[in-house]
Amino acid sequence: MKVVSDSIQRQMAGSSWIRKMFEKGIELKKQFGAENVYDFSLGNPDIAPPAKIREVMCRLSETVSQPLGLGYCPNAGLPAFRETLAKYLSKQQQVEVPASNIVCTVGAAGAITSFFRAVLEPGDELICPAPYFVEYGSYCGHFGGVLKPIPAKPLEFQPDIDAMERAITEKTRVILINAPNNPTGCVYSQETMNRLAEMVERVNENRERPVFLLSDEPYRFLTYDGVEVPPVLPLTKFAILLGSFSKNLSLAGERVGFVCINPALPDAQLLTNAVILTNRTLGFVNAPVIGQRIAMELIDEEVDKGVYTRRRDALATVLTEAGIRFAMPKGTFYFFPEVPGGDDLKFVDALLQHNVLAVPGSGFGFKGHIRLSFSTVDESVIMRSASGFRKAVEQIG
Amino acid sequence: MKVVSDSIQRQMAGSSWIRKMFEKGIELKKQFGAENVYDFSLGNPDIAPPAKIREVMCRLSETVSQPLGLGYCPNAGLPAFRETLAKYLSKQQQVEVPASNIVCTVGAAGAITSFFRAVLEPGDELICPAPYFVEYGSYCGHFGGVLKPIPAKPLEFQPDIDAMERAITEKTRVILINAPNNPTGCVYSQETMNRLAEMVERVNENRERPVFLLSDEPYRFLTYDGVEVPPVLPLTKFAILLGSFSKNLSLAGERVGFVCINPALPDAQLLTNAVILTNRTLGFVNAPVIGQRIAMELIDEEVDKGVYTRRRDALATVLTEAGIRFAMPKGTFYFFPEVPGGDDLKFVDALLQHNVLAVPGSGFGFKGHIRLSFSTVDESVIMRSASGFRKAVEQIG
Repeated sequence: MKVVSDSIQRQMAGSSWIRKMFEKGIELKKQFGAENVYDFSLGNPDIAPPAKIREVMCRLSETVSQPLGLGYCPNAGLPAFRETLAKYLSKQQQVEVPASNIVCTVGAAGAITSFFRAVLEPGDELICPAPYFVEYGSYCGHFGGVLKPIPAKPLEFQPDIDAMERAITEKTRVILINAPNNPTGCVYSQETMNRLAEMVERVNENRERPVFLLSDEPYRFLTYDGVEVPPVLPLTKFAILLGSFSKNLSLAGERVGFVCINPALPDAQLLTNAVILTNRTLGFVNAPVIGQRIAMELIDEEVDKGVYTRRRDALATVLTEAGIRFAMPKGTFYFFPEVPGGDDLKFVDALLQHNVLAVPGSGFGFKGHIRLSFSTVDESVIMRSASGFRKAVEQIG
Repeated sequence: MKVVSDSIQRQMAGSSWIRKMFEKGIELKKQFGAENVYDFSLGNPDIAPPAKIREVMCRLSETVSQPLGLGYCPNAGLPAFRETLAKYLSKQQQVEVPASNIVCTVGAAGAITSFFRAVLEPGDELICPAPYFVEYGSYCGHFGGVLKPIPAKPLEFQPDIDAMERAITEKTRVILINAPNNPTGCVYSQETMNRLAEMVERVNENRERPVFLLSDEPYRFLTYDGVEVPPVLPLTKFAILLGSFSKNLSLAGERVGFVCINPALPDAQLLTNAVILTNRTLGFVNAPVIGQRIAMELIDEEVDKGVYTRRRDALATVLTEAGIRFAMPKGTFYFFPEVPGGDDLKFVDALLQHNVLAVPGSGFGFKGHIRLSFSTVDESVIMRSASGFRKAVEQIG
């Protein structure tokens, strides 16, 4: 009996590396005790939300107990939250963004699928630098889109803009970037962004169906060493911005994100209305109202980045001492080092033998590397993982 | 410049009747004052959530302010909430439902799109009784599904099971029912459900790709006159149950629902895993965690149904006095009366002239009727709407 569609059955067979590691982790923790397992596989921010959330929740108990306090809200979001977002994004992006071009979504993931549904025709192509967040392929695949990853330049992982331009065809609909980048930790420089935007403007000359530059920025706030993420909206009218509050407010599970359609785009309102419609008819209906209210109240807050900074430095020390080559991440909570010997699956296995969990680069469309997340690993645990890394390198070498 | 895909552009052109009435309502309220407009167009429960929600929110302020308090949860939902749902549904459905066959979703709408994505091949057909909730067409259309509505029997609106069976082809994948029904207020009897289940069992003999009986039950708790909704899971192994807490706990905007895969289905776990995957890759990721925790704490509560009962009786009196024919709704907060003269668009216009807002049956694939929702209209307002109904009938007649 066939209870599942063919395409989903295929996807289940190729289940994600992150998930495999997650299950392996549970197993190891049972066997050796959680304190003896070094789990660098998960990207789930473990820093508490800003302290103010406690007071906000208590205050909201009054709001939500009223009639319609938790009722449906407009599909695009609570009007007051959209206004708050408009101010927040106008300041961040250095262009005036009206609330009417913003759609509140069920996280950045809900933003991206609603946007894809609104713009993609079956067979449309999407170009993104590799390595890339694996779910992108599924997100566009639901609606007939095809992802064409273009290798970025190791070891710094800036995108190869010339190669991306060569890959553009009549069917290209979206250039998808994610900076600060999961899995590399790379932040694109102002110069890179300028060149990318110029390329997008050039390829869109005389094109009836424009190629959008979609910038997925859930890690925007999390940069180090004074690096800043250049605002994308002023660079080209074809730029569309996605984001969420999962990382800066540590509320990933409550699912609050947004799409901001570039007000400079011709037909910006038409496209915004299309995303409001797809956000509704894909079944999201509206972003969770409690989450919207929390994000609205905490919009000027963020979690303590100092914790992430200290973890990054600790892991850099551990990797250096083990003789593993890497580019120091300028953002996010990921390292994407080269593996000794070049075989990422083999090295991940070697690490596993010392209770260190990592995700192979193959899981991000980029062999020969691993992703290490320090989103849930305490500084002291990172230091204790040092011998595991050293032994794995020795074993391979 | 074409910024929106063709299919979405078409959907935008045919924007929903409910939305049109919503906008008309805003206009009328501005012009005449909210107290002089009788808005029967919206289905947004205006009864306060159970009082206990206040205490629960305060208690949760502690939970959510901890590290990972609002972090990602498993894609299928918080394990404790799934266990709670398993108990709740086992009791309700009178069969043992394990937590492992339940997926927590972003409302019932998120449940339905995740399920459709998991089972539909492009070109698959879905059969449902008309009138029907218009969004069903979009929900399956995203994944190439085609809705084939089969007229129910007026005036009681029990489904025409023989006609539904005749409409089944090799491409049929789902029979979709919604009871208590939006827009008719009809509840399917035990006898109807038995016959429907027998039909489903019969058509599935020797069929490689089974036809599912998908029961969408967000209004299950809201019945009148001692009527109960027969449990669907025991009737056939092909039955799948969807629901939400939008109506019984008045938390529509927080988006908490579920899919329950029938444990009796061969490959039930495979199908459940497929829905967990599509729930993730459609961008829902997980149902909002605060909503999950609230629903878990309030699982034994419900809003005060007495308010709805009194409103129903008031509206029945108003319609009867105006000489409008209707079947008394046995559930939900909708009436679906016949319109005098037979032209629903014309009658809706006549009502509008007296500041009464209704949705034409055409918006639910069933002409000659209107939908009246009393979800947000107070008893006293219903009584005051009587002259509007009377005058509109006189005008038409």
